[in-house]
Amino acid sequence: MSPIYTVVDYLLDRLSWLGADRIFGVPGDFTLAMLDHIERNPRIEWVGCANELGAGYAADGYARVRGIGALCTTFGVGELSAINAIAGSYAEHVPVVHIVGAPSGAAQAAHARTHHSLGTGDFGVFARMTQEVVCAHATLDANNACAEIDRVLHSVLAHRRPGYLLLPADLTEVQASRPAGPLAGAARMTDARALSRFADAAGGLLDKASTAALLADVLVHRLGAEDRLHALIDAGNIPHATLLWGRRVVNEAHPAYVGIYNGAASAPSVREAIEESDVLIQAGVRFTDLTSGFFTQHLRVERLIDVGPHSSSVAGEAYGPIELADALDVLRTICARRGPFAAREARHVPACAAPEAAGHDPLSQETLWSVVSESLRPGDLVIAEQGTSFYGLGAHRFPENVLFIGQPLWASIGYTLPALLGAALAAPQRRPVLVIGDGSAQLTIAELGTLIRQHVNALVLVINNGGYTVERAIHGPEAAYNDIAHWDWTALPGALGKGRDSFSARVSTVGQLRNALRDADRLPDRLTLIEAVVPQLDVPPLLRELARAAGVANQVAARQGR
Amino acid sequence: MSPIYTVVDYLLDRLSWLGADRIFGVPGDFTLAMLDHIERNPRIEWVGCANELGAGYAADGYARVRGIGALCTTFGVGELSAINAIAGSYAEHVPVVHIVGAPSGAAQAAHARTHHSLGTGDFGVFARMTQEVVCAHATLDANNACAEIDRVLHSVLAHRRPGYLLLPADLTEVQASRPAGPLAGAARMTDARALSRFADAAGGLLDKASTAALLADVLVHRLGAEDRLHALIDAGNIPHATLLWGRRVVNEAHPAYVGIYNGAASAPSVREAIEESDVLIQAGVRFTDLTSGFFTQHLRVERLIDVGPHSSSVAGEAYGPIELADALDVLRTICARRGPFAAREARHVPACAAPEAAGHDPLSQETLWSVVSESLRPGDLVIAEQGTSFYGLGAHRFPENVLFIGQPLWASIGYTLPALLGAALAAPQRRPVLVIGDGSAQLTIAELGTLIRQHVNALVLVINNGGYTVERAIHGPEAAYNDIAHWDWTALPGALGKGRDSFSARVSTVGQLRNALRDADRLPDRLTLIEAVVPQLDVPPLLRELARAAGVANQVAARQGR
Repeated sequence: MSPIYTVVDYLLDRLSWLGADRIFGVPGDFTLAMLDHIERNPRIEWVGCANELGAGYAADGYARVRGIGALCTTFGVGELSAINAIAGSYAEHVPVVHIVGAPSGAAQAAHARTHHSLGTGDFGVFARMTQEVVCAHATLDANNACAEIDRVLHSVLAHRRPGYLLLPADLTEVQASRPAGPLAGAARMTDARALSRFADAAGGLLDKASTAALLADVLVHRLGAEDRLHALIDAGNIPHATLLWGRRVVNEAHPAYVGIYNGAASAPSVREAIEESDVLIQAGVRFTDLTSGFFTQHLRVERLIDVGPHSSSVAGEAYGPIELADALDVLRTICARRGPFAAREARHVPACAAPEAAGHDPLSQETLWSVVSESLRPGDLVIAEQGTSFYGLGAHRFPENVLFIGQPLWASIGYTLPALLGAALAAPQRRPVLVIGDGSAQLTIAELGTLIRQHVNALVLVINNGGYTVERAIHGPEAAYNDIAHWDWTALPGALGKGRDSFSARVSTVGQLRNALRDADRLPDRLTLIEAVVPQLDVPPLLRELARAAGVANQVAARQGR
Repeated sequence: MSPIYTVVDYLLDRLSWLGADRIFGVPGDFTLAMLDHIERNPRIEWVGCANELGAGYAADGYARVRGIGALCTTFGVGELSAINAIAGSYAEHVPVVHIVGAPSGAAQAAHARTHHSLGTGDFGVFARMTQEVVCAHATLDANNACAEIDRVLHSVLAHRRPGYLLLPADLTEVQASRPAGPLAGAARMTDARALSRFADAAGGLLDKASTAALLADVLVHRLGAEDRLHALIDAGNIPHATLLWGRRVVNEAHPAYVGIYNGAASAPSVREAIEESDVLIQAGVRFTDLTSGFFTQHLRVERLIDVGPHSSSVAGEAYGPIELADALDVLRTICARRGPFAAREARHVPACAAPEAAGHDPLSQETLWSVVSESLRPGDLVIAEQGTSFYGLGAHRFPENVLFIGQPLWASIGYTLPALLGAALAAPQRRPVLVIGDGSAQLTIAELGTLIRQHVNALVLVINNGGYTVERAIHGPEAAYNDIAHWDWTALPGALGKGRDSFSARVSTVGQLRNALRDADRLPDRLTLIEAVVPQLDVPPLLRELARAAGVANQVAARQGR
């Protein structure tokens, strides 16, 4: 156990300094020596997961909270099992560092038919595959290691995308110098003249407007500009909405919050607020098929101030380079000078959109999400699986300061259960709440054991609707391929958490669900799993509309008689 | 529900004709229309799995039995989750066809920010990643679909490697013509003159030898030449061994079978038989680190007849192109002419190498594998996870006609549980037996539910040694990172097979294991899971030796003071 400071220690210090106190992964013989250094490091802890995809999702969930996440897997078999998670981090702008332990330089140079290789002697295959889904990658050697670590980390932070470090096993004990100072931050890139011209143009539009609205999305978070956004909203008292992807960037309990914008699938009040105001400010918005009602947004460019990550536009004219935070600051100054916009009639969606449900009412997509929403508390960490969970919760407002995570662009089913593990470890002061369907939970269920092992006392709601209801809504409602194996969900916390207390319940009425939630409240020292049984073909209205559009999109050419 | 014959029907007919009666996968919205065609096809059945990695492993296991396997996943999220399995099929020469449902041509042409894409408008990313681990790939369109399907299938069969077909969702209903005839077979490529020169050289060596031995490996199976191999062995009465990877290519109950060759880690009798004979015939051998005692094979080239897939050599001189089957035929003719080699003293490993264990003896790696081996029957399908299971069984002979599957080159832990699903469905007449460690089983446990759902009444032995014992043997025997979550293994068949009968037992002595195996015999109508508890640091001798070599290989440079 060498007391020398090595390249691995350097990497761990960098990660720790950036805010990571956990590394997720599964051990492999090419990473074991690296894991010794993690075990010895007082500021960073190893979280062994059941499998690498789970570890990758967990690192992603962690990074969405902390602004950095780390994953460590072994060459070939391990890294490829996690590559779906890395691609998801890329798609959704999540800064995860994937550290892969590789065969020693000697084995690679000998082109040996080594385990975990393809047997072809080509050891560059997996790095080439990974290149497609990371913003920076490096194969470390004894001469370049620390410089390359810094380069990749710098890129990960600048682009908010994953990076990849391949570390041959024999490099683990190579001596290094401690970092000379903190990692250099990204250079501010805003051009002062561009910003001033943007201010003039935006001011012109805002000054003559009597109503304004703001539409915010996930990139405001990724660029760390949430405070600027809130200051702008308050300065102008601006009615505002988000896309479903960006729910976390605003406070849904704010009086000027109007709801979630989904293009043509929006609630009429939200659609009117966003589409009919004299000026619309867009902040960090990325329309995707599943967050825009399949691209049915209707926003007139001549009234639009669009604040993007690195440039902004006013009425279609672009100004840049301007960083998003700087543009928001300028808009805040304009609004402060101009004075607040007239308060709109309160039209936001109620905290509970459904009529009060009675205890004996059977659970349905409507009653389920009403009761679940009622039970949420300020400050909760809420993670909703893409499917009925994500869209069902989309019809309800969150209490103040909820941290919401979903994955609507990459939309990889099974993501949320391991993501909850990572996010909960990153935000231990929040109550972790997961809503996930049975079909999705089957993909990554093994990490339920890791949640318990890690003492994450989460509230896990498994929506049992007997299969892939989101797929049924798109195609094949009665088809056998949308069925899944029957699992006894309530037995799983006990089976995967042997010797540990947990609480499980199976509910199918409103009253049973309320009771189970109350029981869970009384047992905050353990994980709770509630299996909520709902009808197989029941689908939240918003998802039904999207599913119909998805079905059409998938057969356009066929309908055209091709 | 079109009655027209489409490109998907064409693909299914081709797969079915090649021997596939199952397609494994997980549905996604880009594949749903394709799944309708599978449901309607009378000769091919959909096997929905819990997740895509499981489906990929299952398709691989199926292909190892049937000579073709098929996997169907959705774009991005699905295919990347399975890509580790595909890479494993590539490494281990397994012919799996991966069919991926993609966004429609219209969505791709619009570079839309579509779910399951990276959001960059680049829809070619995942095909580029996959190219690295398949022998052929195609993106189908309305004009090329059937020709490209044939080209990829042809390549898959010729190379015994996976292939990739990307099928945009809107192509599903495009009309096609039924195949005009069977897929054209690969051209025989043996050169007659090369074969004749090889025969002269090999004959010269064999004629003057008084002892001979034969070492066979997995490629004999992949090239479909097992019958030729057996004929050669019988013609010459040749003492023979295999590598661990190639156990399936010989009958271990054969009187001239001597055991398993592992380089310097071999049993002395096997080492002597293989290394000391006057002539050694090698057939389809691929030495890998974990099947050669870390490359410690010691085979003198001047006595070696090496039969490779496409060329052969005698005493270091190469002859080709010659197909492996043709070379084996020539050698058989020579041996038949020459007459059998003198029978060696019977030195093969006994069916049970360990001393008879008493009922109250605690289970150990030694007693465990003795009892398990005793319980195997002729014709069993036996799958052993890389780790103590694979090497523990390596010390014991199989009964006649056992079909053995392991994955020692790719060595992806968790592989065997889903591989059992696929292999068992491909060989329904065999009793499926799985031996797997607890650390490995955690990676893919969800497919235990699929085994039960598919009525695969397997015998599953989970070796509970409290974590990654194979890693402990290499490095960090007491390290926490080699621990895993505590699971109640015996509760899992019930939890993942709700409403279905299963049998579970937890055993820690020889007698308990024997009883549980007997009980399982009496319940052949259900899945059995036996949790066999063994000491954490107990390791089969062969694995201990390999692990030591692996540990050294991983730190070579460090020891050299780099």
